[in-house]
Amino acid sequence: MSKLVIVGTVAFDAIETPFGKTDKILGGAGTFIGLAASNFNVDSSVVSIVGGDFPQEYLNLLTERNIDISGIEIVKDGKTFFWSGKYHNDMNSRDTLVTELNVLEHFNPVVPENYKDAEVVMLGNLHPSVQMGVLNQMNKKPKLVVLDTMNFWMDCALEELHNTIKHVDVITINDEEARQLTGEYSLVVAARKIHKMGPKYVVIKKGEHGALLFHDDDMFYAPALPLENVFDPTGAGDTFAGGFTGFLAKTEDYSFENMKKAVIYGSTLASFCVEKFGTERMVNLKTDEVQKRLRQFKQLTQFEIELK
Amino acid sequence: MSKLVIVGTVAFDAIETPFGKTDKILGGAGTFIGLAASNFNVDSSVVSIVGGDFPQEYLNLLTERNIDISGIEIVKDGKTFFWSGKYHNDMNSRDTLVTELNVLEHFNPVVPENYKDAEVVMLGNLHPSVQMGVLNQMNKKPKLVVLDTMNFWMDCALEELHNTIKHVDVITINDEEARQLTGEYSLVVAARKIHKMGPKYVVIKKGEHGALLFHDDDMFYAPALPLENVFDPTGAGDTFAGGFTGFLAKTEDYSFENMKKAVIYGSTLASFCVEKFGTERMVNLKTDEVQKRLRQFKQLTQFEIELK
Repeated sequence: MSKLVIVGTVAFDAIETPFGKTDKILGGAGTFIGLAASNFNVDSSVVSIVGGDFPQEYLNLLTERNIDISGIEIVKDGKTFFWSGKYHNDMNSRDTLVTELNVLEHFNPVVPENYKDAEVVMLGNLHPSVQMGVLNQMNKKPKLVVLDTMNFWMDCALEELHNTIKHVDVITINDEEARQLTGEYSLVVAARKIHKMGPKYVVIKKGEHGALLFHDDDMFYAPALPLENVFDPTGAGDTFAGGFTGFLAKTEDYSFENMKKAVIYGSTLASFCVEKFGTERMVNLKTDEVQKRLRQFKQLTQFEIELK
Repeated sequence: MSKLVIVGTVAFDAIETPFGKTDKILGGAGTFIGLAASNFNVDSSVVSIVGGDFPQEYLNLLTERNIDISGIEIVKDGKTFFWSGKYHNDMNSRDTLVTELNVLEHFNPVVPENYKDAEVVMLGNLHPSVQMGVLNQMNKKPKLVVLDTMNFWMDCALEELHNTIKHVDVITINDEEARQLTGEYSLVVAARKIHKMGPKYVVIKKGEHGALLFHDDDMFYAPALPLENVFDPTGAGDTFAGGFTGFLAKTEDYSFENMKKAVIYGSTLASFCVEKFGTERMVNLKTDEVQKRLRQFKQLTQFEIELK
């Protein structure tokens, strides 16, 4: 089993959806990725930063899941990163109401010494230079580097993003971002262009429409499980990335065939994430629930056709 | 092999996409459905209406594919239905530029005598009363009635639509239409509501995101094959419906398991349709091309995961 380093925000979120609203609750890409990856019992470390206002119980929640938090810097007199957003009626789009960077403004990630030999690195959505800063601390080239990013960095840090992407094996972005990054409408053509930027594997997240995995001329399309209730989409993409990466770190098989399974695990975990506010569903997730949903995924997608 | 009755427009289309534009070319739901179904060598009849301006070569094109055209009324001094549209850059939306109903305004479909015992009926997108008029002519209740419709009829003929839907086994609509028809955002909940309106099977077409099949608590999700070039989406939904229905008529198996295959065949044929303007790709489609693409569909979607 490979060690896994995760860098990403550990934060407060306040969320409003058509189904209700929350006060400040536990959020952040690093949190969702870590919780998702913890389903695979991998030896993982979350590298992040929080303020003195961050509750010990949230940190305990991570350590209880065997997530190493020695890489989470606590700035005693600082405030934790806070994001607040409101989802529209269709849940596919949202407005950001508040973004208080707070301690994140001066985030200088430090990978714990005993994780500098980790074979798998998951770079959660952050400034691409911060992501690169983590890679630079590794003792040797990791066997797998997964990067998540978003349109914001394409708008305001494109050069740095290109520099970081060069060192990445897998990139996860959504369909609109893939189009923005490449100027190509066809996702097939966009993925090919992204391959040339560095990543041998491109995962395109399509929210309720599923996820696509591209590698050279190979494609794999995992639909999202249609759900009765989508309560809060926050963290679904990070949960996908955490499940994807956690499964690969666990199995130590970085082939296209195994990545297909990793996409299915990522989609399965993300399908739980959206059923409750914030991390609530992920924190209470049980192994047999995951197995049951994997079975549903098979039923949803598998078919028999005889070819001539 | 079951006989298949198809009702739908046979028309002229003029199409503009970011990749070019056409003069008046062969179009219409009945045409696309018929061409798609003809891949299964079923005994099918297209019921429609055209004007005296409709070229004999277009009719020949149908008969060459063993499509019975005795149900296509030719109004010598009338003009053929004409639709013109322009697709936006993302190809997911379009503006209608011209709609000339012409002979369609007084379309009174007449099912040929030797097709009144057909076991499968495909009601292409038309006024729901016209669709019902076809069903009323059948000698006995068909084994399978498939209905395609659109938001336009929900806006201006909802009561008639509800009356027709009652007599239907399978409905095919897109995701937005399913939401409009039921007032439900979740497609799972929407499908359940539509079941109660009559159709035991609900197919939700999601364009480039694939198609969903619902039956009681069973779900099947066939993604669309990601394509390098989408040239013209016109007729893709009808081609899907024609492939779906043609396969079922051919195999005479109307179970959920077989409908999954029918969805895959429909998606496969639709993936060809969009590669050229109008019917061009469908007219020149070869069996081994279809087989090759079915193989691609399997590769795209099939995975192995061991469950505990």
